[in-house]
Amino acid sequence: MCQLLGMNSVKPADLRFSLTGFAARGGLTDHHADGFGIGFFEDKACRLFVDAQPAATSPVAEMLKQYAIKSRNVVSHIRKATQGDPMRLENCHPFTRELWGRHWLFAHNGDLIDYQPESAGNYQPVGTTDSERAFCALMEELKQISPREPCSPDIIFETLCSLSERTAEFGVFNYLLSNGQSLYAHCSTRLWYLVREWPFSNASLVDADLSMDFAQTNDPEDRLCVVATQPLTRNENWQQLQPGQLLWIEQGRIVRQAQLEVSEAVRKKHEASLACV
Amino acid sequence: MCQLLGMNSVKPADLRFSLTGFAARGGLTDHHADGFGIGFFEDKACRLFVDAQPAATSPVAEMLKQYAIKSRNVVSHIRKATQGDPMRLENCHPFTRELWGRHWLFAHNGDLIDYQPESAGNYQPVGTTDSERAFCALMEELKQISPREPCSPDIIFETLCSLSERTAEFGVFNYLLSNGQSLYAHCSTRLWYLVREWPFSNASLVDADLSMDFAQTNDPEDRLCVVATQPLTRNENWQQLQPGQLLWIEQGRIVRQAQLEVSEAVRKKHEASLACV
Repeated sequence: MCQLLGMNSVKPADLRFSLTGFAARGGLTDHHADGFGIGFFEDKACRLFVDAQPAATSPVAEMLKQYAIKSRNVVSHIRKATQGDPMRLENCHPFTRELWGRHWLFAHNGDLIDYQPESAGNYQPVGTTDSERAFCALMEELKQISPREPCSPDIIFETLCSLSERTAEFGVFNYLLSNGQSLYAHCSTRLWYLVREWPFSNASLVDADLSMDFAQTNDPEDRLCVVATQPLTRNENWQQLQPGQLLWIEQGRIVRQAQLEVSEAVRKKHEASLACV
Repeated sequence: MCQLLGMNSVKPADLRFSLTGFAARGGLTDHHADGFGIGFFEDKACRLFVDAQPAATSPVAEMLKQYAIKSRNVVSHIRKATQGDPMRLENCHPFTRELWGRHWLFAHNGDLIDYQPESAGNYQPVGTTDSERAFCALMEELKQISPREPCSPDIIFETLCSLSERTAEFGVFNYLLSNGQSLYAHCSTRLWYLVREWPFSNASLVDADLSMDFAQTNDPEDRLCVVATQPLTRNENWQQLQPGQLLWIEQGRIVRQAQLEVSEAVRKKHEASLACV
């Protein structure tokens, strides 16, 4: 399986503190050593850094630890391959596509079994993963709503609710999706989130010997939401998402959420797979 | 205006020698200091590194000078903005889209005036440049050929001939395009190419005090083609493309080329603009 990290913030934020802990999981404190990827949005466009080398040792990850790229929306992923050749670039998350004149980023943790969605052919997978197939299906379904960006973003959330419920029937479907404005987070089995806001406190990384006093580095109006497979810090108020929970995060806070139906069969399968980890 | 660099090779090649000279043009030996971008293909997928900082000083460019990313197809661009805000990520070349389950990379040098192509809406620009509009139009036109990758790649070349001729009516349209297999290079005003093959020789960069003996680093069956706005080395056999010339490069050599029609009005306009540089 893999690990996910997402961030949505009121103001462009420097994610290097969280990335230091997260990158350590790519081969140092955890076994997710099959490559990593991170996409930073700047307005409607994102730039994506991927590497087939483990995040703990990759020169790209090393550069990112030094270079303060500030962003309001970030999606990152470190990989332990389940399907698809791990060393192939086309199988590295996050995946990106353009829809409605915006980039979209998608990263998935899980495994969809016998999942072959129908496609209108507007978005075709480049690699061989179930994850990219799911992302292409998701982009197709959003494109069907409207040829241009819909006036009301609620319809995007409702489409994601319907699609996530159906796709989760095929297996574990924890994912993060962003279009540079919103971050959407869906939990099948394991995902946590944290809203970091005033009054800011001191936090210590779980995976590295590093602390930061956010009161010193943030203004009172700053606020950001971090979503991760496992809590990244020891002393902050991380909340666990429930299976079937879908969050819509904007301006560093949850603006809408839904509890999707999870069938008894799927729930039992997930419980069994969690017990094996 | 901007500078372009493209490479197509029989085997995955390390481009750091050429990049060292090319990156120096981004603010050090030349004035193209409005950001840079480079995309490396690995099979059907590319990874793209862009930065709004000048190539001569960017931490991303610095990392790339150290990290030997080997690739059979590379497209790179350093920017001197003419249209669009130079500091915005969405306006940085190369641009990328997916078509037929492959990534495509496009970089443009020039300026298209009053260019507003019609669009079926499958590919929408994220930024505000004439270049990205031209790329989206190009992707739309290729998609119209067939919903899946056509069996014969000749039809791709012929579509590019037709589109390049029409688009060049709007202004200067030097471009590089790659799908990870082929590199296409179109010249409106200024583009050079070089086939580097056995017997390999020694070459010195124009923009940096650096030489390399390719006979020491290449096998006899190696061959690559480099395309650039200006020759990168002093002592190699660079060939200048003619206005209206379109090259299709594969396996490090030109497999097909066309001399497109350039109207007298366009030719005169280009001659005037070259005289001003």
